[in-house]
Amino acid sequence: MEPNASNNMQPDHCLEIAPMGVHKVVPPPHRSTLQKLKSRLKETFFPDDPLLQFKRQTLGKKWILAAQYFFPILQWGPKYSFKLFKSDIVSGLTIASLAIPQGISYAKLASLPPIVGLYSSFVPPLVYAVLGSSRDLAVGPVSIASLILGSMLTQEVSPVNNPLLFLQLAFSSTFFAGLFQASLGFLRLGFIIDFLSKATLIGFMAGAAIIVSLQQLKSLLGITHFTKKMGLVPVLSSVFHNINEWSWQTILMGFCFLVFLLLTRHVSIRNPKLFWVSAGAPLVSVILSTILVFAFKAQNHGISVIGKLQEGLNPPSWNMLHFHGSNLGLVVKTGLVTGIISLTEGIAVGRTFAALKNYQVDGNKEMMAIGLMNVIGSATSCYVTTGAFSRSAVNHNAGAKTAVSNVVMSVTVMVTLLFLMPLFQYTPNVVLGAIIVTAVIGLIDLPAACQIWKIDKFDFVVMLCAFFGVVFISVQNGLAIAVAISIFKILLQVTRPKTMILGNIPGTDIFRNLHHYKDATRIPGFLILSIEAPINFANATYLKERIQRWINEYETEEDIKQQSSIHFLILDLSAVSAIDTSGVSLFKDLKKAVETKGAELVLVNPVGEVLEKLLRADDARDITGPDTLYLTVGEAVAALSSTMKGQSSSHV
Amino acid sequence: MEPNASNNMQPDHCLEIAPMGVHKVVPPPHRSTLQKLKSRLKETFFPDDPLLQFKRQTLGKKWILAAQYFFPILQWGPKYSFKLFKSDIVSGLTIASLAIPQGISYAKLASLPPIVGLYSSFVPPLVYAVLGSSRDLAVGPVSIASLILGSMLTQEVSPVNNPLLFLQLAFSSTFFAGLFQASLGFLRLGFIIDFLSKATLIGFMAGAAIIVSLQQLKSLLGITHFTKKMGLVPVLSSVFHNINEWSWQTILMGFCFLVFLLLTRHVSIRNPKLFWVSAGAPLVSVILSTILVFAFKAQNHGISVIGKLQEGLNPPSWNMLHFHGSNLGLVVKTGLVTGIISLTEGIAVGRTFAALKNYQVDGNKEMMAIGLMNVIGSATSCYVTTGAFSRSAVNHNAGAKTAVSNVVMSVTVMVTLLFLMPLFQYTPNVVLGAIIVTAVIGLIDLPAACQIWKIDKFDFVVMLCAFFGVVFISVQNGLAIAVAISIFKILLQVTRPKTMILGNIPGTDIFRNLHHYKDATRIPGFLILSIEAPINFANATYLKERIQRWINEYETEEDIKQQSSIHFLILDLSAVSAIDTSGVSLFKDLKKAVETKGAELVLVNPVGEVLEKLLRADDARDITGPDTLYLTVGEAVAALSSTMKGQSSSHV
Repeated sequence: MEPNASNNMQPDHCLEIAPMGVHKVVPPPHRSTLQKLKSRLKETFFPDDPLLQFKRQTLGKKWILAAQYFFPILQWGPKYSFKLFKSDIVSGLTIASLAIPQGISYAKLASLPPIVGLYSSFVPPLVYAVLGSSRDLAVGPVSIASLILGSMLTQEVSPVNNPLLFLQLAFSSTFFAGLFQASLGFLRLGFIIDFLSKATLIGFMAGAAIIVSLQQLKSLLGITHFTKKMGLVPVLSSVFHNINEWSWQTILMGFCFLVFLLLTRHVSIRNPKLFWVSAGAPLVSVILSTILVFAFKAQNHGISVIGKLQEGLNPPSWNMLHFHGSNLGLVVKTGLVTGIISLTEGIAVGRTFAALKNYQVDGNKEMMAIGLMNVIGSATSCYVTTGAFSRSAVNHNAGAKTAVSNVVMSVTVMVTLLFLMPLFQYTPNVVLGAIIVTAVIGLIDLPAACQIWKIDKFDFVVMLCAFFGVVFISVQNGLAIAVAISIFKILLQVTRPKTMILGNIPGTDIFRNLHHYKDATRIPGFLILSIEAPINFANATYLKERIQRWINEYETEEDIKQQSSIHFLILDLSAVSAIDTSGVSLFKDLKKAVETKGAELVLVNPVGEVLEKLLRADDARDITGPDTLYLTVGEAVAALSSTMKGQSSSHV
Repeated sequence: MEPNASNNMQPDHCLEIAPMGVHKVVPPPHRSTLQKLKSRLKETFFPDDPLLQFKRQTLGKKWILAAQYFFPILQWGPKYSFKLFKSDIVSGLTIASLAIPQGISYAKLASLPPIVGLYSSFVPPLVYAVLGSSRDLAVGPVSIASLILGSMLTQEVSPVNNPLLFLQLAFSSTFFAGLFQASLGFLRLGFIIDFLSKATLIGFMAGAAIIVSLQQLKSLLGITHFTKKMGLVPVLSSVFHNINEWSWQTILMGFCFLVFLLLTRHVSIRNPKLFWVSAGAPLVSVILSTILVFAFKAQNHGISVIGKLQEGLNPPSWNMLHFHGSNLGLVVKTGLVTGIISLTEGIAVGRTFAALKNYQVDGNKEMMAIGLMNVIGSATSCYVTTGAFSRSAVNHNAGAKTAVSNVVMSVTVMVTLLFLMPLFQYTPNVVLGAIIVTAVIGLIDLPAACQIWKIDKFDFVVMLCAFFGVVFISVQNGLAIAVAISIFKILLQVTRPKTMILGNIPGTDIFRNLHHYKDATRIPGFLILSIEAPINFANATYLKERIQRWINEYETEEDIKQQSSIHFLILDLSAVSAIDTSGVSLFKDLKKAVETKGAELVLVNPVGEVLEKLLRADDARDITGPDTLYLTVGEAVAALSSTMKGQSSSHV
């Protein structure tokens, strides 16, 4: 490296700034509107610049790269080794042992036949293995998306009275969810899921966990007449109005298995190396409880069981998709909501583990993978699937190296579907309930909530809104409320941008917020403000009022102290990254207002776009003349104070 | 003033910075959560600090100030003089001569009985004179609010078949419009109208002018079977499908008066001193045309006339207000839309003339005044009123000094209502149509549209959307589309904040955008980025990807040039005015990512709130330690390059 570039800065500064005096603010190099539009579009839709790797490559290489881009399996497949496979087979079998009981349970949560949960653990993982770029994602049905799908569809169609229509709607919703997810990725609109902030998600997931657990009271207590509503109040009232239906055998069995599952979960949390304890526990519970029921003929003593399940692989279901008719609106809406929720979970999980293992996951590409997986799933009797957090964590802990672990899981599920289905006939529903409760308890993240409280009170309020909205109103509305509040906060930030009054840090030409740096001092005759946001129609009026108030405060305060009226209003625009027509008018209005006080408006360091627009609007060079435009606050103050001294001495 | 404060900066800098070296970044002075909340609320809802004037006053004086605050008439009333009254009476009579024909015309535009237009020009101006703080606003019905009120209500209730219900709904809508306006002011939510940007309004008003003019083809051509729709296409098709209904007498008369009115308008625009030419023309047209019709019995030759009008002042209408029933939704919606549109017009007009005459208009106070005026109006047979732009301009040009000109206008209208109503019996509708067309033509502001095109292409697109939306879809939807696009732009700005790569301007310690200042140079080993927006959940992911790309680009570019890998990533946070929990995680993620490249993350100048949150989240002082936090980029580079030199020499 060149040694003189950095260490000659300090002396140079002192030597050169004195003779040169003031540096000019120059307009940025000219670019045509088309060029600007192009770069703006690139920044908006291709911030990660996916085409960078294609640069300076031969045509053949470009084709290979493109194929690898769309099918990541081509990237890691050729390098795949037996050593990797050994790791993948262990992790694949581990997540299969979790996926089978969870698949059955989550399908019941979505009011779907249990077997659909297994179908959904067979085809989608295979599709993801080809298209997905995460190495840790364990694909399958997840609790929250199942809950939402079930609750939204049951509002209009009963799964008991009209099971076939319900199934058709579920597959159609899955199709639209996938279509929506893939489109988001394809149109590079992935940033839409960023609007679900971490705070929103933590509140939402905790609320959903409560709702899901409450639903399990049906199977845990053995109630047969259970409310179809989801809220805390109707469920609890339903539970306590049906005390006569509570079955002690079911409660006892549920309690035992719940304690067992929670204990294994506790062990695995304490010692992550024992991940297999909690990973295997659900399957063990299913097997154990099935044997118990079979041995004691418990199904005749008030314990409800799954019942006969059909053997065989996924039947095709493309003929069951609804693209028109009266339920289209419902299906599209359900698809949209479940699509975005499951996408958020999948992307978040992928990014988390990618960060842990230090590889990249391309959000938009992942969306296409998850979307296609659901579209194909909807044609093969699967409902909405994504990367589940808990199962992916197990996958990661079990040492998964590539998406082959998904393939192993998928094959295991296939074997189950083909040969082991009769074994589930006597599996009691109460154990499935206990499995769900244990799985969703992990969604309640109290430490994260505490951290949010510590860092940002407003985020905490958003979190609470999401939580209480989900628990007391409904899953979708709770989420909508939290998102609306988050967006409202952003809009409020834009409408009420910060302005800071700057003072000089003695002995330097640095200017910083007077209310932050106590040693910063005002310079008499100067009011130096920094505007900390893009200026646009939504805040131009506010900024005018606020700056007016700064001027009034300056005059009243200063009057008392030292009788120095305002000579210059310096606006530091370094932080104003954009401006629109209303913003341009703001400066014209401010100039007028300042001039009636006998003062001058000076602008410091407008960035490229802002300067361009000001120059274009200001033909007369009123606000962008050489005397009113400086590169730094220090230079502006130095240059202007000499003028001012001349004036004030002639006054006296 | 102290002469040494400003001129010793330059030498001091050189003398002191060398020994002192680096300035510390200190956390801002401690404030409790409650204090912060209080100041945040103040900045959000009381940016203009209306309580400032109450400070350091005696209790009695405070009461007087409070009374003057709510009733501005108490402020200017006592100082009122005969000289002011002379000016006000001239302007009052001038706007009355405009208000009477316009009142009748606009009421017809809203599908209301013509007399309601006169009622609305009587009571509201009196209320405004007591409560309003603008000296130039001429209060009365306006074209756009009339159009929207009429079009929204006719969608559900026919004014022909059910005139009484229609009237009730109009008054109820007015009540809700007033209530909404007053609440906005009272709750200090006035910034909501700022979301109608100038570009949106210009497009919207031009579109509305076209729609209003098209509606006048009914009276201008004498068509009896006219469509009830508003859009360009249905109206034109209705016009050309009813050619047989065109009446040449009506067309001739309409053409003559339209030419006359447009000519007078042209004269007044050319020479603003001749404002009375265009101000008097509508009344002259009405009188002239009425006499013509009466003399030639033209009502029997295909020219439709207003017909008999009832004499007398406003009858009470509070018993006609609907607060429940099936139409409540419609009424509330209509009230909301007309309320916000008329409020926007009223506030904009008030601010424009206040700026011209250099006095202050308090937006929130004005909203309460306009709101109360409409609430009282709705109980006295008036429909939505506000400050009309054209009439206020005439008022201003005619020399209005205070709101007394509104009182004069109101008294003139009262006299008309009491004694002159029979005279309007033979006034032809075609003249009213010509008056409306002449009035709304002024809403099409082509020069402003050109200016917008010049300054900001995106704003121009928003303007076009508003215009075409109004013309082709509907008035409300056109407006909604334009507002949605404007807000989308803001959200896009937030989601895709700018990042700039900074370089050193040789011979200084100033760092500026490399792509803007061509003489700025990179410093080997340093990647210096400036983030130009608050960091929050909506952009944290983007920023991470984008900064990652800056790093990748740096490495690929630099590698070729001089083989200097990245040692420090310096983030200039001066422009980051706020941060949330996602933003805090961003820095932790970035630190991790940078460290894998063997580099360090350095933060420069985080502002108060940002620094506080970072400190609170970063117990380990990983990202906010003394070596990773600097006050300026220059100091960071100077301090770090010495460390780096030590390292690199030991490497070599």
